[in-house]
Amino acid sequence: MSSYSDLMDFTRETAALSLILDRLGWDMETTMPKGAAGQRSEEIAALEGVIHARRADARVGDWLAGAENDPEADPAQLREIKRSFERATKVPGDLAAEIARSVALAHNVWAEARASEDFAGFAPTLERIFDLRRQEATALTSGDLYDALLNDYEPGATGQSIAAMFDALRGPTVDLIDRIKGADQPKALSGHWDAEKQMEFSAKLAEVFTYDMSHGRIDRAVHPFSSGSGKDVRITTRTDEAAPLDCFYSTVHEVGHAVYEQNVRDDLGLTALGRGVSLGIHESQSRMFENQLGRSRAFCSWLGPQMAEAFGHDLGDADAFYGAVNRVTPGFIRTEADELHYNLHVMLRFDLERALLRGDLAVTDLPEAWNTRFKADFGAEVPSPSKGCLQDVHWSFGLIGYFPTYTLGNVYAGCLHEALRADLPDLDADLAAGQPAPAIDWLKERVHQHGASRLPAQIIRDATGAAPTEAPLLAYLNTKFSGIYNL
Amino acid sequence: MSSYSDLMDFTRETAALSLILDRLGWDMETTMPKGAAGQRSEEIAALEGVIHARRADARVGDWLAGAENDPEADPAQLREIKRSFERATKVPGDLAAEIARSVALAHNVWAEARASEDFAGFAPTLERIFDLRRQEATALTSGDLYDALLNDYEPGATGQSIAAMFDALRGPTVDLIDRIKGADQPKALSGHWDAEKQMEFSAKLAEVFTYDMSHGRIDRAVHPFSSGSGKDVRITTRTDEAAPLDCFYSTVHEVGHAVYEQNVRDDLGLTALGRGVSLGIHESQSRMFENQLGRSRAFCSWLGPQMAEAFGHDLGDADAFYGAVNRVTPGFIRTEADELHYNLHVMLRFDLERALLRGDLAVTDLPEAWNTRFKADFGAEVPSPSKGCLQDVHWSFGLIGYFPTYTLGNVYAGCLHEALRADLPDLDADLAAGQPAPAIDWLKERVHQHGASRLPAQIIRDATGAAPTEAPLLAYLNTKFSGIYNL
Repeated sequence: MSSYSDLMDFTRETAALSLILDRLGWDMETTMPKGAAGQRSEEIAALEGVIHARRADARVGDWLAGAENDPEADPAQLREIKRSFERATKVPGDLAAEIARSVALAHNVWAEARASEDFAGFAPTLERIFDLRRQEATALTSGDLYDALLNDYEPGATGQSIAAMFDALRGPTVDLIDRIKGADQPKALSGHWDAEKQMEFSAKLAEVFTYDMSHGRIDRAVHPFSSGSGKDVRITTRTDEAAPLDCFYSTVHEVGHAVYEQNVRDDLGLTALGRGVSLGIHESQSRMFENQLGRSRAFCSWLGPQMAEAFGHDLGDADAFYGAVNRVTPGFIRTEADELHYNLHVMLRFDLERALLRGDLAVTDLPEAWNTRFKADFGAEVPSPSKGCLQDVHWSFGLIGYFPTYTLGNVYAGCLHEALRADLPDLDADLAAGQPAPAIDWLKERVHQHGASRLPAQIIRDATGAAPTEAPLLAYLNTKFSGIYNL
Repeated sequence: MSSYSDLMDFTRETAALSLILDRLGWDMETTMPKGAAGQRSEEIAALEGVIHARRADARVGDWLAGAENDPEADPAQLREIKRSFERATKVPGDLAAEIARSVALAHNVWAEARASEDFAGFAPTLERIFDLRRQEATALTSGDLYDALLNDYEPGATGQSIAAMFDALRGPTVDLIDRIKGADQPKALSGHWDAEKQMEFSAKLAEVFTYDMSHGRIDRAVHPFSSGSGKDVRITTRTDEAAPLDCFYSTVHEVGHAVYEQNVRDDLGLTALGRGVSLGIHESQSRMFENQLGRSRAFCSWLGPQMAEAFGHDLGDADAFYGAVNRVTPGFIRTEADELHYNLHVMLRFDLERALLRGDLAVTDLPEAWNTRFKADFGAEVPSPSKGCLQDVHWSFGLIGYFPTYTLGNVYAGCLHEALRADLPDLDADLAAGQPAPAIDWLKERVHQHGASRLPAQIIRDATGAAPTEAPLLAYLNTKFSGIYNL
């Protein structure tokens, strides 16, 4: 046996154990009895401990050294295993344990502070989390601290390059929104939409978007999510009998994540590369499915009549339905935002968390900084912390460097969509026939199948012939919303 | 930190990891997508590997030695951890791996042989399994080989004592069945019973039998089972629209297993003692719930009218329903057997597997030995191997020493039921009011709460004041069926 084959055998088991974590997480949100939460947290902690110990196992270091000059060894596998080994070994055990403990406690503190609109009650906890993760970043790198954290979610990306991209995106986005403000607003859907029928319709939509139900399933949960990889990738959606579009586009969004995972090449399964490569590329797929494909004029011209028939509602003409699906409305809450406002929400968080990590912004000054920036970008006063800097769960989980991947996903989707349109001249005809499959085949070929064997920037370059930029996204948004709002 | 507290911390994590195995097994039979089976088997193998390595971890041996004279150490915890450590370390790794491999392959060989009525096709595999487990038993003990295997399922029991008990049970059971043969047979239920309504009614029955749904759930599966321990104990049942009693008594049976696990004392949770102590004691609870409580005349007098109302069927008078619930009908298949024939099925398997393990019976002679014994006990010729020695999955899984625990459970249930009736003079009144809860409280106090902290024989002695014998079971069966069949 070579070092490399030993390393791959060991990694295969670690990958299998990681898949179990996904299943436990899914179960918690769908089928787990309420009273089992405490026991489940012990199960998850025990399994995470096992996985962490395996990632940091000294033998992994030895095998990596032994495999370095092995011509049989896949450099991408070694790169990814090495990244996870260094991540697991560079951070002192005490610090890792302290982060895990603090984050476990922080969630409740945040939830209570949000419920009682009490930012001061959360501030010391938030300060501690930023401090601990700053220490972690310092252990990981001699370079930029933010990049060390970002690297976990978006390998190869840097805060600086993202900042440049986002700064270029921000002005034109605000301009476009300003122009929309003066225009006629399309009417939202109304009426009652049966929840069970929404679930049936979701299953049909999932199939249309090539979700493989023999390796997946759809359940209802409080928050829509996709979970798992390879041969078992499950999604959830939610229903609101007044808002069917929330259900359907949540479904299509999660199907985008899930199909990416289902389409990873079989030979990468149960290896370090057998998953989507980054949160940004993941989000590019979910957003592409949801927006560039699912909210396109062509697809809406198919979807509207399908919904009208399934639910017995009159949805007006194709323009009315397309408008209802793509209404632009400002709001305080990120998760409820439309395609334009969403990126403004993300950019605000990205700038603030970088400043907090650098120490340029004190945690106690966060609400003021948030509200000032919000006023500048959205033109409205934030009425209370729960509608401002206390709205998101991420920082309480210690997730710093995570937010930008949402908008990075939109930027990537813009790039991929431009290239896809150039390659598939019949795309609109396909979508108007309820057939996104040719577009998804294109994505499978260029993105999905590679799993984590290519880094994000490389995937975009290989698929589009150019490095990712915000320009295609801006062009797409301008064309789309100028059309809808007759600008 | 003492050796003992280190040992308990380590064991706590191992116990949590074992609970995850239960969840994966449950998921496989209920919610898992069909195409995920291959990936799941890798997940389970990886987790089992982790758990086995922890049980055999050299530190466990050191901690056990260090804790031996620690006055803080619970001797029952040490006893159970030591048992699992010795089990994990005495069997050579090569042999354990070979058993795992052989058993994994055997299942399909058995299934094909059964489908094609080809015992010869399974015989070499079965021989190999008995040979490997004989080697394993030899590694485990210098004493009786069968006992070494039995000890896994029924700690403290011996083949010899079980044989004496079973031999005393067999004759009177055959006699009772013979007398029933000449009597009038009660009518079976007829009509159509809606499957969804059966599931609703099952949930109601589960509640009546004190199943805690905040720490459990009921799903449909091909085979009814109970899964998990402590704060998350799930059951499944099945529905057949012609046979509602199969669904309801399967539910009550599994609730018996599940309530035992739910009622284990909190301070034993996530320790080596935090589960039911043995298969026999487990089966005593499921059979007591199902038979001594659920199929009692008193409970049937409540259940019949409840079913009649819920389903709108006329079920005749109380005697007719009680008779329908307790019909005695001979058959070739163990899993379909009534309260009387069931034990004959088990005793046959117990005697044969002991003879096979000792080498007194050759695998090639198994069909003839089976059929001869079946003729003697049941008075019928076995028409084909699938109705004889190929019917059960157990041996293909390597489960030798498992079968007797079924009848041991009935024997224990007989003992406990006798003591319970003496303590609870109002039992029949409670049951006739649809209230088994007082009886279950009695069982919780004497059996459930102790988990694995007391060995099976001790539990029976503490609860009844005497060692377990077959006499109470025989007395119960005689009285019950003499009444139903007017013998």
